Amino acid sequence: MNQKAFAAALGQEPADLVITNGQIVNVFSGEIYAGGVAISGDRIIAQGDVAYTIGAGTEVIDAEGQYIVPGFIEGHIHPESANLCLTSFADVVLAHGTTTVFTDLHEIGVVEGVAAMDAALAEGCATPLTIKFVFPSHVPFSPGLETSGGHIDASTIEEALKRDDVVGIGEVVSQYVAFGLPDLLRSIEATRAAHKVLSGHGPETHGPAWNAFAALGVAKDHEGMSLDDVLIRVRNGVYAHLRHNLLVPTLPELIKGITELGLNTRLMCLVTDDTSAITLTDEGHLDHLVRLALSLGVDFVTAIQMVTLNVADSFRMGDEIGSLAPGKVADINIVTGPEEFKVLTTIAHGKVVAKNGQTVVVTPRPEHDPVLLNTFHLKAPVTAKDLVFAAPAGKTAAHVHVMRTLPWVPITEGGEADLAVVDGILAADTEQDLLPIAVVERHQATGNIGKAFIGGFGLKRGAIASSIAHDNHNIVVMGVSPDDMALAVNTVAEMQGGVVLVAGGKVVASIALPVVGLLSDMDAWSFARARKDVLAQAAAMGCSVPEPFMFLSFITLAAIPAFAVTDKGYVNCLTQQLMDPVLSWK
Amino acid sequence: MNQKAFAAALGQEPADLVITNGQIVNVFSGEIYAGGVAISGDRIIAQGDVAYTIGAGTEVIDAEGQYIVPGFIEGHIHPESANLCLTSFADVVLAHGTTTVFTDLHEIGVVEGVAAMDAALAEGCATPLTIKFVFPSHVPFSPGLETSGGHIDASTIEEALKRDDVVGIGEVVSQYVAFGLPDLLRSIEATRAAHKVLSGHGPETHGPAWNAFAALGVAKDHEGMSLDDVLIRVRNGVYAHLRHNLLVPTLPELIKGITELGLNTRLMCLVTDDTSAITLTDEGHLDHLVRLALSLGVDFVTAIQMVTLNVADSFRMGDEIGSLAPGKVADINIVTGPEEFKVLTTIAHGKVVAKNGQTVVVTPRPEHDPVLLNTFHLKAPVTAKDLVFAAPAGKTAAHVHVMRTLPWVPITEGGEADLAVVDGILAADTEQDLLPIAVVERHQATGNIGKAFIGGFGLKRGAIASSIAHDNHNIVVMGVSPDDMALAVNTVAEMQGGVVLVAGGKVVASIALPVVGLLSDMDAWSFARARKDVLAQAAAMGCSVPEPFMFLSFITLAAIPAFAVTDKGYVNCLTQQLMDPVLSWK
Repeated sequence: MNQKAFAAALGQEPADLVITNGQIVNVFSGEIYAGGVAISGDRIIAQGDVAYTIGAGTEVIDAEGQYIVPGFIEGHIHPESANLCLTSFADVVLAHGTTTVFTDLHEIGVVEGVAAMDAALAEGCATPLTIKFVFPSHVPFSPGLETSGGHIDASTIEEALKRDDVVGIGEVVSQYVAFGLPDLLRSIEATRAAHKVLSGHGPETHGPAWNAFAALGVAKDHEGMSLDDVLIRVRNGVYAHLRHNLLVPTLPELIKGITELGLNTRLMCLVTDDTSAITLTDEGHLDHLVRLALSLGVDFVTAIQMVTLNVADSFRMGDEIGSLAPGKVADINIVTGPEEFKVLTTIAHGKVVAKNGQTVVVTPRPEHDPVLLNTFHLKAPVTAKDLVFAAPAGKTAAHVHVMRTLPWVPITEGGEADLAVVDGILAADTEQDLLPIAVVERHQATGNIGKAFIGGFGLKRGAIASSIAHDNHNIVVMGVSPDDMALAVNTVAEMQGGVVLVAGGKVVASIALPVVGLLSDMDAWSFARARKDVLAQAAAMGCSVPEPFMFLSFITLAAIPAFAVTDKGYVNCLTQQLMDPVLSWK
Repeated sequence: MNQKAFAAALGQEPADLVITNGQIVNVFSGEIYAGGVAISGDRIIAQGDVAYTIGAGTEVIDAEGQYIVPGFIEGHIHPESANLCLTSFADVVLAHGTTTVFTDLHEIGVVEGVAAMDAALAEGCATPLTIKFVFPSHVPFSPGLETSGGHIDASTIEEALKRDDVVGIGEVVSQYVAFGLPDLLRSIEATRAAHKVLSGHGPETHGPAWNAFAALGVAKDHEGMSLDDVLIRVRNGVYAHLRHNLLVPTLPELIKGITELGLNTRLMCLVTDDTSAITLTDEGHLDHLVRLALSLGVDFVTAIQMVTLNVADSFRMGDEIGSLAPGKVADINIVTGPEEFKVLTTIAHGKVVAKNGQTVVVTPRPEHDPVLLNTFHLKAPVTAKDLVFAAPAGKTAAHVHVMRTLPWVPITEGGEADLAVVDGILAADTEQDLLPIAVVERHQATGNIGKAFIGGFGLKRGAIASSIAHDNHNIVVMGVSPDDMALAVNTVAEMQGGVVLVAGGKVVASIALPVVGLLSDMDAWSFARARKDVLAQAAAMGCSVPEPFMFLSFITLAAIPAFAVTDKGYVNCLTQQLMDPVLSWK
C-alpha cells in the first residue's frame, strides 16, 4: 500500500476512481447491499459508504443500481486451447470480466521450453490481464511415451520456484504420484518447501491412490467428472475446480454437490481448463459458467464466490485478489443481476478496461520473440505410406485394436475390429467408421511416426491434420485417403503450424497457427469466424463430432484414458505402455 | 510427507494409529458422516474409509460412535493472563482439546524482551502443544506513555521475521496506524514483504480509520465488541476473531452476526484473548466457547469450524492444520455430540495426549532460564507518601479527575469528584468509592511513580498490589490506607512478582509469580485453588468486581479507553496524552 492510497483510505487525499450507487456482492459476508467501491492507484481503499473518498479529480462511475462484484479469476486454463496469442486471449477474456488467470502455459513449454513460456508470458503481462504462472510439473507430460520440444524436470522446477511470478506447479498427475516417480516427488517436495501451490491432475483417482495424492499436499484439482469426484475432493480438503467446457460439459453433474448434497462451497471453484475462441466470443468465459451455475440453481453470491474469492483462496492469494475489500487489487466488475447476468464494465488494476463486451484498452499485437516462431523440424516431408500400416505380402486383412472417441468427450474406449488390406495397406473403413491415425514428430527431426486406428469421428473422405496435439504437439493426422493425409501433414509443417483439411488431393480449408504451431495472430472474433468456416468444411466431409480439431488434440494425450497415439506409437493409457494395434494378420 | 507416511496412505505400510467407528465432522464439506481417521507419524493419511490402513502394529482407537473433529486452534491468546508458566498452560489447554495456540508472548516481552520470550517459547515447545509465535508489533505498547523492561521496534521485527517459527506480528494498533507511526508502518511493510500475517488490535475503529487499517493488510482482529464491529470486519475481509472471556463476555452479542444476520462464517473464529486459570480448569478453553456458541444457536459444524479450519485459514495455515484431511498434522479430538459437547480424547502430532479432561503425557516442569527470573529492579522501597498526592499547605480539598471501571469490563469512564485532604494527602473516600491508585516502575529502577484516582472496585480497607499490569507490568497498587499500599508494593517486589493483599499493616494473602513477575510454577488446578482463596479475601475486603487483579491489570493499559495510569502518570487513552488528575485545590 503506497502513501497516496493509504492517505486516500483515511480520507486525506481524494480517491482516483469511485463506483457509486451499486449493489455490492460481498463474497466474505455473503450479503448483497447498497454501496460503492473506492480506488486509489491499483488498490481498493474502501467499500460500502465511499462518499468520503470523492474529491477533486476523482472519476466517478454511477453503477445505476447494478451489482458490483470482484473481477473474475480463472483457476485453471490453458490459453493455448483457444489458439490465440496471449494478447488476443487477454482481450477476449477481459471483455467478459476475467481479470486474473492462473495458467501453466504448458503447451507452449511442450514445444519450446521455458524461454518460449517466458516470451508468451511477457506478451500476456503487457495486457491489463493478470497472469499467475503455475509452472508445468514436467515436460514431456508422459515421459518415455512421447517426444516434446521442451524439457522440464525437477531441476528446471527448483530454479523456477525461485521466481516471484511462479506461484506453484501445475498438472501434478495422480497416477505418477502413485507410481512414486522420483523426479516428480522431488518437484513436489521443492514446491512444498517454497510454500507454493501444488495443482493436481487426478482423474479416476480414488481410495488409497487419492489419499496419497492429497497427503502430498495437492491443493486443488480440476479432473472431477462425477459427484463422487466432487465429494472426494472437498472432503479431503482439495479445492474442487469444477470444470465445464465444450468437451467436458460436466457442470450440470458436478453442481449437484451444491444443489443436491448441500456441501459447503468454500472449496469449490468454476474453471474452464480448455476453451475455444468460439465459446469465448459467442458464450463468454467465466461469466458463461456463472450463468450456467445460476441456471442450475446455485445462488448468486455462491456463484460469484466460485469465480472470485474461492479461486484466490485455492492459491492462498485471497489476501491480494478475489474480493472488494480495502487493500485488495482493484479488479472489479459491474454486472447485471442473476436473471440475465451480463458483465457491463470491467476494471483491472484500477483502470476501466472493458465495457459491454468489448475492451476499451487495446494492447497492440507484439512483435513475437523468435523463440515462438519457426518451430517445425521434420526429418523429411512425409509420404502416404509413412502414415499407414503396410500389409505383409499375401495378407488380406488384419484383426486390429482400435480406439473410439465418445461422441461428446474425447475420452477413448478400446475395441477390436477387422480391417481389410486395400492397395497393400490397412485401409480406412468408413462403414465401420474406422480411420488410420498417425502422429508425426516435429520437434527434433527424429522421423518418429506413431500409428493406430481411430473411430467415432465419422469422416467420409479426405484427411484432417493439426499441430495441436496434447501433450506433445506433434502433427496428428487422420483420414480416409493416405495421400490426402500426407499432403495435410506436409502443409501443416510448411505453414509452421495450423489445422488443415485436405480432400481429393487439395487443401480445402486451413488456419495458420504460426506461434509455436498452436496460436494465431488474429483477434478472437476473427479467429472464431475462421474456425467456424473450417468446422463447417469438416462437417461437410462427414465429421460428426462437434469440434474435430479439439477432439483430435486429446486423442494424442497419453494421460487420459483409455488409449492414445503419440509419435512413439499406440498407448494404453491405463498401463502407460505402448502396444501394437495390429493384433494379427489374416 | 515422509516415505513411511506416503506408503501408509497408499496402503503399502500399516498406519501407526487409527480411529475407527466415529462420526467425522468434516470442516470442509460441512458434513457429518460415519468413518475413521488414519495416522502415520505426525500426519493424517486418510479419513472416512480407513480400514485398509490397519495392519500389523497399528494401534486402533474405537470412537464408539462419538464425533471426530480437528484439534482446536486458539487464534489469539496471551497465555500470561492465566499466570501459568508455559508448561502448566499447555497441560491445561491440551486437557481441553486445544492442540495449537497462536500467541505473541507479548507480556513476557514487555518484561525482559526477546530473550525471555524465546526462553518461555522453548518451555512451551517442549510440550505436545503447538505454539505459533506471532511476534509482538512493538514494546512498549504505548511509546512515551509507559516504561517497559523489554524493547521491540521495527529493527527487532525485521530480524524476527527471518525466523521460521515467527508467523507474523501481533496487536497492530489501529489508532497508531491512523496516526501513521513510522516505526509501526515499517514493521507492517516488513511483515507484508515476508508474506507473514498482520494481526490487528482495532477497538472502536470505524469508517476511514478502519479502511486504512484494513488496507494495510490486517488479516484478523479480536477487538470487536458489537454486532457492527463484526460486520465491519467480515465485510472488509478481516477475520473476526470473536472474543469471549470473563472480562469481555461478548459472544452472546457477537454471535448474532450468525444467528440473526446470517453472515457467512468463513471469516469467523472463537478466541479467548485473556483467560484465567480458574476459567480454564472449571469451564475449559475453546471447548467452553464451542459449548457457548452451541447454546446460542450456532450449528455444530459451524461451531467446530470456528475453532479449527477458520482459525488456521486466518493465518493462511489451513494447508497444515485445522482439518482431518490427508497430509495435515494429526491434531484430533474425539468429542461427544453437540448436546453436552465434551472432549473425550485429544491427539496431538499423532500421539494421544489427553483423555477425559486430563493430560496423559505430562511434560516435567523445566528449570527456568535465568532471564525469566529476578526481574524486579526498584530504585528503592516505596513509602506511603510516594504513592499519594500531598496537599499544598493550607489546602483542605481538591477537585480531581477520576476514572471508574465498568462493573463487568475493565473499561474506564472518566469523571470528576471532590476529595478531602486528610493527614496532608488526598485520601481515599470509600463513600464515593474512590481510591488512590499508583504504578511503581520496576524494570529500570527509574523511581517513576504515576498516580491517579480509581473508582468502581468497592475496596473498603487495606490495599491491593500486583505485578500484572498491562502493558508494562510495573507494580500497580490501590488502597484505602497509604501505609498498606506501600507494604503491598514492597512485598510484591520482594517476592519477585505476585499479587498481594494487605490490611491493617499485614499481608493477608498473596500468590508468588516468580517467572517474569507474571507466571506461577504451580499446575493450573493448584493455581486456580490459590487464586480462589485470594479472590475470597479480596471480596472480604469489599472488592465488588469479579476478578480484581485482572481488572486492575487493565487499568494500567494506555491502549484501552478511556483513562489509564502508568508509571509516567495519568493517561487520557483517547488523546494518548498525560494529564494531571488534580484539577484544582481548594
